[in-house]
Amino acid sequence: MKIIEWRNGKIRMLDQTRLPLETVYIEIGDIAELCEAIRALRIRGAPAIGVAAAYGMALGARSIQTGSKEAFLSRLEAISRTLAATRPTAVNLFWALERMNRAAHSQAGVSEIPAALLKEAQAIERENEEGDRRMARFGAELIEDGFTILTHCNAGALATAGYGTALGVIKAAHEQGKRIHVFADETRPLLQGARITAWELMQEGIPVTLITDNMAGHFMKQGRIHCAIVGADRIAANGDTANKIGTYTVAVLARENAVPFYVAAPLSTIDFNLKSGDGIPIEERHPDEVTSIRGVRIAPPGVKAACPAFDVTPNHYISAIITEKGVARPPYTESLAALRRSGN
Amino acid sequence: MKIIEWRNGKIRMLDQTRLPLETVYIEIGDIAELCEAIRALRIRGAPAIGVAAAYGMALGARSIQTGSKEAFLSRLEAISRTLAATRPTAVNLFWALERMNRAAHSQAGVSEIPAALLKEAQAIERENEEGDRRMARFGAELIEDGFTILTHCNAGALATAGYGTALGVIKAAHEQGKRIHVFADETRPLLQGARITAWELMQEGIPVTLITDNMAGHFMKQGRIHCAIVGADRIAANGDTANKIGTYTVAVLARENAVPFYVAAPLSTIDFNLKSGDGIPIEERHPDEVTSIRGVRIAPPGVKAACPAFDVTPNHYISAIITEKGVARPPYTESLAALRRSGN
Repeated sequence: MKIIEWRNGKIRMLDQTRLPLETVYIEIGDIAELCEAIRALRIRGAPAIGVAAAYGMALGARSIQTGSKEAFLSRLEAISRTLAATRPTAVNLFWALERMNRAAHSQAGVSEIPAALLKEAQAIERENEEGDRRMARFGAELIEDGFTILTHCNAGALATAGYGTALGVIKAAHEQGKRIHVFADETRPLLQGARITAWELMQEGIPVTLITDNMAGHFMKQGRIHCAIVGADRIAANGDTANKIGTYTVAVLARENAVPFYVAAPLSTIDFNLKSGDGIPIEERHPDEVTSIRGVRIAPPGVKAACPAFDVTPNHYISAIITEKGVARPPYTESLAALRRSGN
Repeated sequence: MKIIEWRNGKIRMLDQTRLPLETVYIEIGDIAELCEAIRALRIRGAPAIGVAAAYGMALGARSIQTGSKEAFLSRLEAISRTLAATRPTAVNLFWALERMNRAAHSQAGVSEIPAALLKEAQAIERENEEGDRRMARFGAELIEDGFTILTHCNAGALATAGYGTALGVIKAAHEQGKRIHVFADETRPLLQGARITAWELMQEGIPVTLITDNMAGHFMKQGRIHCAIVGADRIAANGDTANKIGTYTVAVLARENAVPFYVAAPLSTIDFNLKSGDGIPIEERHPDEVTSIRGVRIAPPGVKAACPAFDVTPNHYISAIITEKGVARPPYTESLAALRRSGN
C-alpha cells in the first residue's frame, strides 16, 4: 500500500485519521492543503512527514512563475518555511526540506527545477524504503523466536512511507519465521496504536494484543514482555530520543523490569546538531485531543487539559538504537557518529 | 451529594457511568439490579462497593419470607454470595458482607433482622465518611503549600460514599488553605479520572489539569509533580497494593523521579489474610472496554485486546499508606498491624 504518491501533478495520500474503519485517499493540490494534512496528522510519523514535505516542495515549485533563479529559489524557500512551521519535533521534516532546497540550488536553470525536485522527492521516498529494509534486517537479529514485543504509537509502513522502523523490525522477524506476538499500546490521545499499529499488524498476519497505555507496566512486571521497540521523532547526538508521549514511561518500566528497550530510526532522524535531548522542542497540541476521543466528549466542560505530543527518553534507558547502517550501542555520542561516518 | 442512599425501601444511587455530562439517579429494588449496577460500574470504588453491598443485604433481607431463623440466615447467605460474585478484587465488598452476615446472626428473632441490617448498612456508610475525614486530616500533613499532586483513577467521595480517600486528602489540604494543583490521569479504559475526578475537583474549586495516563511520566521528569496519591482496592498485609490498572506504572515513575507515592485507604481495604499482593485476584474485564470508548469503536474489527482492571504495586514503591488511624510507613507488615491494633 502506498500511503503517499505523486499522481497527475498532485499528492495523493491515505488519510490516516480515518483508519481503521475507513480507507480514504485525499488529493492535495496546494501547499495550504498539505500543511493542514500534516498538522491534522492525516500523514504522520517522522520519516513520512519528511517524504510529504519533499513532495510538497515539488508541488510548490510548479506554482512558481518566474524566470529568475534567484527569485525562484527565494519563493521556494518561503514554501519551505511554511512547510517547516507545521510540526516542530520530528527532525526529518527539516532534513528533507534542506535536502530539497539543496537540490533546487544545484540546478543550472529555473526550468529544470520542478522536474529535479520531483525526482529528489521520489529518491527520498525510495531511500526511505531501502533504509527501512536494511534497518529491519539489523533489528531482527535482536528478536528471538517466541518473543512478545511491546510497541508504542505507530512506527510502521504508515509512519515512514516505506517498510516501517520499529514495525519493520517486527515484520522482518516475522518474515524470518520467528514466532512473535506484539502488545500494542493504544497510544492516547490520538490512538495511533489502536487505530494504525493494530490494523497494520493484522494486515501482515502478525499476532497482536491491543492494550491501553497504562497496562504495559503490568504485563512487563508479569514477565510477559521480552523487549520493547519504538520509533523516534528526533534523536540527539547523545542518543536522547524524542518520540510519542508515553515513550519515556515505557522506557522507565522496561529498565525497571530488565526488558531491553530499542529505538529504531533512520539516520535522518538523528539531529547531530543537538548534544542532548534538552534542546528538542516538544509540540503542544490542542487540549481537545485529550478531552474528546473521536468526537465524543469524555471530560467535564471547561476542564483544563495538557497535551504534549512527545516526550524525551534519556539515553541511559535505551539498550540500542537500530539504524539503516547498523545497531548503535551506548555510549551513543561515539556510536552514532561512527555510523554516520561509516560507508555501510 | 449522596451517591447512594436508602429511600422508601429501595436503594437510590447516582449512575456514575453517565458522568460528567449527565447526572442520573437510578432506583434499585432487587439484588439482580444491584449486581448489574456494581458489575457495570454504576457505583465503583472499593469503599463505595462495600456500602452498596451492605445496602444490598438490607434490601435482600426484606424479600425473605420465612419465620425460621436458620432458613432466613441461609437465604441471606445466598444473597451475600450473589453480591460477592460481582467483582473479585476490592476486598471491602467481602468485608462489608461479612459484617452484615454477623449483624444478622446476632439478632434474637427473624422479625428484627431487616431493620437491624438497614441500621448496620447506614452505620457502615457513616463510619466510612467519618474514617475518610480522619484519614484526610492525617494525609493532608503530607501535602505542602504549593504542591502539584498527581492522582490516578477516582478515589473521591464518589468512590467511597463518604469524603474520599486520595481526593479526601487533597480536599482537606485545599480546605486548610494550601495552594495546590492536581494533575488527574484520565485512567483508561473507563476514564474515571477524566469523567469523575476532574468533575469532582472542579465542583470543589480545586485547580485540576487533565492528562492522558502516558503523560504522567513526562511531567514527573520535568519536576512538575511533588507527590502522587492514589486509593486502593485491596492491600495485602505487607503493603502490596492492588488498585486501578496503571497505578503500578505511576509508582515506578514516581520512584524513578524521587516523587513520594502515597496510598490512601481505610483499614477495611487491608486484607490481613494475604501476606503479599501475589494472592490478590485481578479482575479481567471485557475487551470491548479497550476497543471502544463511550460507544465509539477505536480499533480494527476482530482485534484481540487485554483488559486487566487492576495491577499490584509492590510495597517498596509506596512511601506511606494513609489510613483513618494514622499514616503507616515501611515496613508495612509491622506498621499496618500496629494500626489495626491501635485504639485511635
